[in-house]
Amino acid sequence: MRAAMYYGNSKIEIVNVPEPSPGAGEVKVKVHANGICGTDLHEYYDGPIFISPREPHPLTGRAMPVILGHEFSGTVAEIGGDVTEVSVGDQVTIEPIYRCGECRPCRTGHYNLCTSIGFHGLMADGGMAEYTVVPVNQVHRLPESVSLGLGALVEPMSVAYHAAALGGVGNQDSALVYGAGPIGIGLWFALRGMGLTEIDVVEPSPERRAAIERLGARTLDPAAVDVPALIADRTNGDGVDAAFDAAGVAPAVESALASIGERRPLISVAIYDCPLPTPLLSLVLRERRIQGTICYTADDYRAVMALMAQGHYDTTGWVDTIPLSDLIDGGFTELRAGRRMKLLIDPTA
Amino acid sequence: MRAAMYYGNSKIEIVNVPEPSPGAGEVKVKVHANGICGTDLHEYYDGPIFISPREPHPLTGRAMPVILGHEFSGTVAEIGGDVTEVSVGDQVTIEPIYRCGECRPCRTGHYNLCTSIGFHGLMADGGMAEYTVVPVNQVHRLPESVSLGLGALVEPMSVAYHAAALGGVGNQDSALVYGAGPIGIGLWFALRGMGLTEIDVVEPSPERRAAIERLGARTLDPAAVDVPALIADRTNGDGVDAAFDAAGVAPAVESALASIGERRPLISVAIYDCPLPTPLLSLVLRERRIQGTICYTADDYRAVMALMAQGHYDTTGWVDTIPLSDLIDGGFTELRAGRRMKLLIDPTA
Ligand SMILES: [Zn+2]
Ligand SMILES: [Zn+2]
Ligand SMILES: [Zn+2]
Ligand SMILES: [Zn+2]
Repeated sequence: MRAAMYYGNSKIEIVNVPEPSPGAGEVKVKVHANGICGTDLHEYYDGPIFISPREPHPLTGRAMPVILGHEFSGTVAEIGGDVTEVSVGDQVTIEPIYRCGECRPCRTGHYNLCTSIGFHGLMADGGMAEYTVVPVNQVHRLPESVSLGLGALVEPMSVAYHAAALGGVGNQDSALVYGAGPIGIGLWFALRGMGLTEIDVVEPSPERRAAIERLGARTLDPAAVDVPALIADRTNGDGVDAAFDAAGVAPAVESALASIGERRPLISVAIYDCPLPTPLLSLVLRERRIQGTICYTADDYRAVMALMAQGHYDTTGWVDTIPLSDLIDGGFTELRAGRRMKLLIDPTA
Repeated sequence: MRAAMYYGNSKIEIVNVPEPSPGAGEVKVKVHANGICGTDLHEYYDGPIFISPREPHPLTGRAMPVILGHEFSGTVAEIGGDVTEVSVGDQVTIEPIYRCGECRPCRTGHYNLCTSIGFHGLMADGGMAEYTVVPVNQVHRLPESVSLGLGALVEPMSVAYHAAALGGVGNQDSALVYGAGPIGIGLWFALRGMGLTEIDVVEPSPERRAAIERLGARTLDPAAVDVPALIADRTNGDGVDAAFDAAGVAPAVESALASIGERRPLISVAIYDCPLPTPLLSLVLRERRIQGTICYTADDYRAVMALMAQGHYDTTGWVDTIPLSDLIDGGFTELRAGRRMKLLIDPTA
């Protein structure tokens, strides 16, 4: 079968490798589509970062080279021994986390923070291939009304849903989302799914604003309007009930902290390159907080799939599919240049 | 009577003014002692900041000049009409907050965040005087076993208690306190009062470490030990359950964030002069949070007085009393130079 193999910085090749077979407790999935993630770009251009060059990962036993791809959906092609949860032919999406089950985060239900965490597609051969084998606890059956195309987006949408849930907001609340990339879009879908109607997406790029506006979102251009002043005006000084930073830059953090009400959270879901100058005094004076969030657990997967089944997610205008053979030129290069927002790989093409 | 009148930057005079009389709903207090606060120093050296030069405060109607002093205890000398809560001769401590009662924070029980907040001793004539008149809702009767000297410390100790309570810790939990000034000491007393035994106070000054050690605290010198490494070692990588920043400097924030466990809080109770470079990525990767805290409400006053009645607070070695006449030279100057930690003013001397 064909697969995108990662050999280190700037070195990914489409190779031919044998099809993997499922062992006990494992499931072989015929991949329908696999999203390219910012993490993949990071590994390619700046890595290896998460992928271990030599040391085998404690949970998977794997190091470089590995097949990339941790955001994917597919059809169950074969099941290993002891697998009763799914059957051949089931349409599934994969929750690509390997966890130890023993560390404190695992014991308290927060395995997204497992101290030995591994990811399928970084610490094990992933979904940028015609087939891949995963442990059965990574498999979620898709609801009937959720397409395999949408199924490939459950992973990034769950990152955003987990962040949205940490905002602790309800349908009467207002929110600001900073950044209209894939996670910002996912935040908007998640908050809408939670019943919020008062959401503004703050995004300097006109293309990204246009893309999320086409989905129905209200946007603000931070270069054109003073966001905290506008929010203060609109809310009679109370501020919004939560802000979400999916931009990861200092002006977003500053604007968000100045726009949320007292005792309200700024949820940080960005990968900050370096420490940002942060107006901590603004936390103190209004008892605000900044809450970090990362990844998801099975609860987030279930919530996202339920919202997808209700028609809450629309891929129009921000998701495209390209063939595996075009991974670098048509994929990584385009994403890095900001000319595409979210790309799925078709491993059969 | 004699009083310390604030006329603006670097201008405080000990003046003779008429004794005030209580109106309806007010209480005249004979001041026993009034603490000098960092806020007072700020008004003197860098102000006016909170004190309004001209514009009358919306709740008190007052502007400069005002008598300073918002941390005090005393004896009820006279009561105005409709006052039934206290009687002449009662020993009391003052919770110096004026609140509007109508803004959202007030309506939701968080009047420490009142959008029109005022303070007795900043927006009204305060406790650095032989007598002062306060609204009855600012008066708390001291428990029998709590001395008037200790009573003058309820205000700053309540700032610290409110911060400690936001940490959400219990008696099996561990904590780090950054800074061993009066608020850091108050945090230590509050956390001990909540039953915690695993507390380390991180403080670079040998004098301040010695002072809090004399009270029974365990300390760490951040110049001599790698605090996050020591904590990781001691807790098997789990980290402490909460950290408290009463230092307000970047190295403290950085060390604290690297020392707390996943989904644990750093409580910020410092007045940060400027935005600090903050490792937000460390929030994201472990779902940590930074929570701001300011002032207190009556609940904190009651909790501190209850702990004081149980003997939890000890003023040995960090609290001294000076005469009102020595306010600037023996007070502000010494505090600013770091030669004293907490000074109470005796307004009769
Ligand atoms: Zn990803
Ligand atoms: Zn684990
Ligand atoms: Zn004060
Ligand atoms: Zn109010």
